[in-house]
Amino acid sequence: MSGPVAFCSPSTGKVVRAVLFDTFGTVVDWRGGVAEHVEAFARRHGLTIDALQFAHDWRACYQPSLEAVRSGNRPFVLLDELHRENLEKVLAQHCRQTPAISPNELDRLNKAWHYLPPWPDSIAGIAAIKSRYITGPLSNANTSLLLDMARYSGIPWDVIIGSDITGCYKPAPRSYLRTAELLGLHPGEVMLAAAHNTDLAAAQRSGLATAFIPRRLEYGPRQQTDLHSSGSWDLDAASIVDLAAALLRDPGA
Amino acid sequence: MSGPVAFCSPSTGKVVRAVLFDTFGTVVDWRGGVAEHVEAFARRHGLTIDALQFAHDWRACYQPSLEAVRSGNRPFVLLDELHRENLEKVLAQHCRQTPAISPNELDRLNKAWHYLPPWPDSIAGIAAIKSRYITGPLSNANTSLLLDMARYSGIPWDVIIGSDITGCYKPAPRSYLRTAELLGLHPGEVMLAAAHNTDLAAAQRSGLATAFIPRRLEYGPRQQTDLHSSGSWDLDAASIVDLAAALLRDPGA
Repeated sequence: MSGPVAFCSPSTGKVVRAVLFDTFGTVVDWRGGVAEHVEAFARRHGLTIDALQFAHDWRACYQPSLEAVRSGNRPFVLLDELHRENLEKVLAQHCRQTPAISPNELDRLNKAWHYLPPWPDSIAGIAAIKSRYITGPLSNANTSLLLDMARYSGIPWDVIIGSDITGCYKPAPRSYLRTAELLGLHPGEVMLAAAHNTDLAAAQRSGLATAFIPRRLEYGPRQQTDLHSSGSWDLDAASIVDLAAALLRDPGA
Repeated sequence: MSGPVAFCSPSTGKVVRAVLFDTFGTVVDWRGGVAEHVEAFARRHGLTIDALQFAHDWRACYQPSLEAVRSGNRPFVLLDELHRENLEKVLAQHCRQTPAISPNELDRLNKAWHYLPPWPDSIAGIAAIKSRYITGPLSNANTSLLLDMARYSGIPWDVIIGSDITGCYKPAPRSYLRTAELLGLHPGEVMLAAAHNTDLAAAQRSGLATAFIPRRLEYGPRQQTDLHSSGSWDLDAASIVDLAAALLRDPGA
């Protein structure tokens, strides 16, 4: 049942069985996708909003809100709920006089994060990797968000283990380790593929194999961070299709 | 994002969004599949074993071993581990003088439950249902078992939430309710499809929609139980393909 030869991670010394992906920024374009949903929302309500700036500001609330959970200052709460709280803050920043918008309408806009477009190489690359490896997300998103994203974008994941299943947010070691455990794998048999060096560093500290994929437009044309890999990752690929080629290459060839 | 019209459950009064399946017996043929693995094992070790009887006896240990967990007599333990314990008992029954077989070889035979053949209608039916509904297992198996089963058999699940994620065994209400919660759905928006009336009764008590699919050869040609539906289920289908037809029928047509 072991199938053809798979990639052996130099850093973990194990044959990789599962390739898991960070999602926001790595697999899908949250900036462009959220901005589109914000534009439609603004049109429906007759508002003038800089949609790309709105997306940027909404995302900027992300790490601080996760940190409140990671630090133990608040119990675990779904990313959907954190996004919803942050939405109200950002809406107040962008609309001096916040118009009367129903909670249902805000819930609808909050679902923007469920329906984001994949980068052009994501689906083909993941489908190719799936031919030999278990594939799935390893994301701070909750399971239902990742499920909607997969069905909407056609991402052919084998399995979806959201942050509400592990009960914590990356870069907490449990995010990586509990995911590997649920897959029945040693951490070194699991590879994290991500566009963010800090995520890869945490995965590596937890004993996972690692692959960097640059997403130089994640934050738009003036992006300064994560333009290149900055660690000793097992693989440094130009795209997910390129990662697939590296993972499917016959090591004896 | 709601898509075309979906089935509305008469019993829950909700539109069904996810159709989840019992697996052993409903989606895959454990009896024939396990017997094949047992035959190969017997050949490797020069043993004479009645493979179908062995499969039957191994499965007969299943409910009692789950009951030890359900009753609180032992903490939650993976189904893989219960299968492994039960394997040693059944092997001792079938081979008067148990030959020296390495733990690795027993682990290998224990994986029989990961690699079982689907019934002829399972893949086509689930693929069709997936076109409009979230699909997944709702099984007592652990996540890695269900993942191996899906990859081996080509079952195109959207999501896999194993018993090690809910932390309990059916028919505990939490099995059904926690699964719905992780999907972000009301229990009445989730349908359980199963070949076992007792499983459907428990799901219905937890507020889920229900569909019966007979598997009259699950226990072989002399099967006496679950030949017909024995409850007021939302749907009573002849096969998973037939269930797909019922779920995809335009209610206005």
